[in-house]
Amino acid sequence: MGQAQQTEKQTTIGLVGFGGFGRLIAQELWAGCPVRICDPSYTRACLPDGRRVPMEGLAEVAQCDIVILAVPVARMAHVCRVLAPHLRPGTLVLDVGSVKVAPMRDMRALLPLHVEILGTHPLFGPQSAKDGVAGRKIALCPERGERWRKVAVFLKARGLEVIVTTAEEHDRELAMVQGLTHLIGKVLTDLEPLPERMTTASFDLLREAVGMVQDDPPTVLHAIEVANPYAAEVREAFFARASELQAQFAPQRIVSDVA
Amino acid sequence: MGQAQQTEKQTTIGLVGFGGFGRLIAQELWAGCPVRICDPSYTRACLPDGRRVPMEGLAEVAQCDIVILAVPVARMAHVCRVLAPHLRPGTLVLDVGSVKVAPMRDMRALLPLHVEILGTHPLFGPQSAKDGVAGRKIALCPERGERWRKVAVFLKARGLEVIVTTAEEHDRELAMVQGLTHLIGKVLTDLEPLPERMTTASFDLLREAVGMVQDDPPTVLHAIEVANPYAAEVREAFFARASELQAQFAPQRIVSDVA
Repeated sequence: MGQAQQTEKQTTIGLVGFGGFGRLIAQELWAGCPVRICDPSYTRACLPDGRRVPMEGLAEVAQCDIVILAVPVARMAHVCRVLAPHLRPGTLVLDVGSVKVAPMRDMRALLPLHVEILGTHPLFGPQSAKDGVAGRKIALCPERGERWRKVAVFLKARGLEVIVTTAEEHDRELAMVQGLTHLIGKVLTDLEPLPERMTTASFDLLREAVGMVQDDPPTVLHAIEVANPYAAEVREAFFARASELQAQFAPQRIVSDVA
Repeated sequence: MGQAQQTEKQTTIGLVGFGGFGRLIAQELWAGCPVRICDPSYTRACLPDGRRVPMEGLAEVAQCDIVILAVPVARMAHVCRVLAPHLRPGTLVLDVGSVKVAPMRDMRALLPLHVEILGTHPLFGPQSAKDGVAGRKIALCPERGERWRKVAVFLKARGLEVIVTTAEEHDRELAMVQGLTHLIGKVLTDLEPLPERMTTASFDLLREAVGMVQDDPPTVLHAIEVANPYAAEVREAFFARASELQAQFAPQRIVSDVA
């Protein structure tokens, strides 16, 4: 893989983490450029073209022009520490975590000053992007350097809607977006089996929404519910509103509303 | 209107109630056959073809071959009592209420034995059927007579998915379908403004679902939350699950789950 890239002066991409989202990245980028992959949980990676290649070491992957960290938010600090000594000056390091404040603080603190840093959050997953990424949204939080602009152009060219924001603004908004989806998903999942036959259009949409987040791995839930500094507020608002409703739906109250 | 129908031997249709759903019925049926409309809240009805016609009396509308009761579930008994003396033998009377046990009990008890009875629940509203009724679902609960089969054929020919069921089975399933949609809709509406920019596909579906039920009139909410005999169970399950989650999301518990 390495030779072809160097003779063509193609941008080389290193991927750290080959979980659900890492695989989606590999699949999306594969046609355009080879990706060097590192994940200590596997000995080989099965590529989108069907080939199986051995995993590379972190030191090798760190030599790429762009290094994508597709690791759980909770592993971020550890990965940055191990990766740091191998990074070349001018490398762009970006993450894809579901929260931005904490991982970007880790990258700032633990990566060498000579690398560029970009926080990203693709607002989709293997489930919601199964028909392709075009039309899906991605948040970019530029942190250090200017090469993130090229990334933005590349993503827009693939049909993604690029939203440039800050880590704080992102986490505040996503606390509600992901927090509420997750809470409602949990409630509905626990009430299963849900009706499938006599359903309304709005109920079908609810079920579809829940289906998209139902199989999120625990690492994503951890990011949404623990690593996001605004998650607790959203949960409190949801539960407070639910208990207000519970009181409001007491039979005597409803009857008097209607009368 | 009346003369044309009789010479052509066209099935005549009477509509009692010209609220949101009554208007949708008039609009859907208008091209195929004239509809005679009665609603004491209005003096004239603005028809889909732009004409304004005077409202007719209940006694006139009762002379039609099929009489559709598009009235709030809570008004059903009253309307049946007033309508009953005017109905001719062999008339098919059907309702379109969001619950079936109570309105069908009213129709059975209060309409003369010489009319046929059909309970229906179109599982859509003016909002979810704004692009047409094809592909939408409708539940039919046959009660007395055989002419409901012709109604089923007519509805299927218009692209509707017809589900034949009983009043009890309907109410049990819809308690969950409409009860959960409504509860979640209430919680999300009360948490507004909801984010619109950095949203995931699943959150967009949730918002769309809520948007469909947000403007439901109080009469529909009454049917869903009070008139449905199984609604209280669903509410209890929802709130019980929400408070379990609340306990589960206490920080110490989440951290130990992830560790």
